[in-house]
Amino acid sequence: MSSLQQLEARIRRLEDREEIAELIARYGLVMDNRDMEGMPALFAPGAVVRSMDGVMNATGHEAITELFRGRFKVLGPSNHFSHDKVLTFDDSDPDRASGLVLSHAEMNRMGQAMVTAIRYHDQYRRHEGCWKFSERVLSFFYYVPASQYLDALSEGLATRMRAYNNAAPADWPEKLDTWQKYYGR
Amino acid sequence: MSSLQQLEARIRRLEDREEIAELIARYGLVMDNRDMEGMPALFAPGAVVRSMDGVMNATGHEAITELFRGRFKVLGPSNHFSHDKVLTFDDSDPDRASGLVLSHAEMNRMGQAMVTAIRYHDQYRRHEGCWKFSERVLSFFYYVPASQYLDALSEGLATRMRAYNNAAPADWPEKLDTWQKYYGR
Amino acid sequence: MSSLQQLEARIRRLEDREEIAELIARYGLVMDNRDMEGMPALFAPGAVVRSMDGVMNATGHEAITELFRGRFKVLGPSNHFSHDKVLTFDDSDPDRASGLVLSHAEMNRMGQAMVTAIRYHDQYRRHEGCWKFSERVLSFFYYVPASQYLDALSEGLATRMRAYNNAAPADWPEKLDTWQKYYGR
Repeated sequence: MSSLQQLEARIRRLEDREEIAELIARYGLVMDNRDMEGMPALFAPGAVVRSMDGVMNATGHEAITELFRGRFKVLGPSNHFSHDKVLTFDDSDPDRASGLVLSHAEMNRMGQAMVTAIRYHDQYRRHEGCWKFSERVLSFFYYVPASQYLDALSEGLATRMRAYNNAAPADWPEKLDTWQKYYGR
Repeated sequence: MSSLQQLEARIRRLEDREEIAELIARYGLVMDNRDMEGMPALFAPGAVVRSMDGVMNATGHEAITELFRGRFKVLGPSNHFSHDKVLTFDDSDPDRASGLVLSHAEMNRMGQAMVTAIRYHDQYRRHEGCWKFSERVLSFFYYVPASQYLDALSEGLATRMRAYNNAAPADWPEKLDTWQKYYGR
Repeated sequence: MSSLQQLEARIRRLEDREEIAELIARYGLVMDNRDMEGMPALFAPGAVVRSMDGVMNATGHEAITELFRGRFKVLGPSNHFSHDKVLTFDDSDPDRASGLVLSHAEMNRMGQAMVTAIRYHDQYRRHEGCWKFSERVLSFFYYVPASQYLDALSEGLATRMRAYNNAAPADWPEKLDTWQKYYGR
């Protein structure tokens, strides 16, 4: 039978999962509500927010706030929402975990309806008793004007990343090792 | 070390979270399956279902059933599904909690394809051992014919609430305090 | 007060829920990443994957792998993601559970943008210490070229299953007992 201490560790792990899921939820709400007062509590000191394509890249609270303020300049109303999560805890440190989070966002951006499918590659850290992001890396399946959704998943498949000036290849799945192995590239 | 009783309370809290998540899932299934026998178990006695715009407003099992029967008259096949949740428990009463739930629904409504993005503002109560809704308030990001999705997130942004006779402003984010503060309104 | 053993059983049940949710997440990732090495760990020996319409039907690891290899032949990049879950545990066997899982997938298929809304009817089994699918049955709300989404939820409602050669009725909700009872069919 398990000792009280072992049970407590298992309960804590389950609570950690719930807290991290809620952190992920709050991230979206802070973005969509423009809740600048809620933003700092999302990130651990020295946290990194970046996109796999290198366009986004900020370290520390001040730079992250600037990054998002810049995004909000081109953004109208937005709606971020997430789906499946795979959370993995660091066996050597109960205050660290990593996660892969599937998400979508729909938004008004520079006057256009835009849609994007995102995978977040997260590092979490318990800081002053609360779970926070220590790193959040965005990789995109597509990021396109909603009017180009059909094209992005058919003729225009090769360049589904259309958030910036030039249409570019998306981050996944084509660049994944598993994908390249399956298709013998 | 924690006492057995303290551990039990933490376990119960985790179980409560799972039960409430399942309640939220069952709500969508009851709607989409037209499961009238499953409907009463969703709501505590005296429960309230209303929309922030005041169009929906029902108190008690009978009125809620009537409300949904009315919706089903104009509704064809529908699909409700939810995403992130923030659940908050009442520290002074272990049988009460509140929640914010992100959702979408897609449906045939009055012969048209319609899509909507919803935030549910919930109050939950443990009644006869089971978690139920004591209040469910709907607020909309948009509610439009799918053919107008692009317009609703671009030119027609100001009037994204198009479920009723007259197109109207949506509930969020424009009416939120955080949004108005950020944009200095 | 509860005994240590009772508490441990409740903790284990909560851990089981988390593991099954992660299994569901990994299924989508294996599909979308073409992660053939990750595929076997999803399924218990003798597992069944089938669709309610009978088109998909495979038993055992080898047949399931063949089934998915066949799908991948017509599939380009894909994105599977899931929403609400109702998980039910077998009271007579702590190593068995069943689930209903709401999902969508968006994909490039035979050169076209396709979208589908799925309910997975799952059986799970703990095998060698890990939860796996012992059965996964897919039922569809629609499965259509994204260009036909509007039609499928309006004029073309009667034949929303358009993944194969002939457009056909969808699996749900029209075929459900609750639906037929509500509409007196």
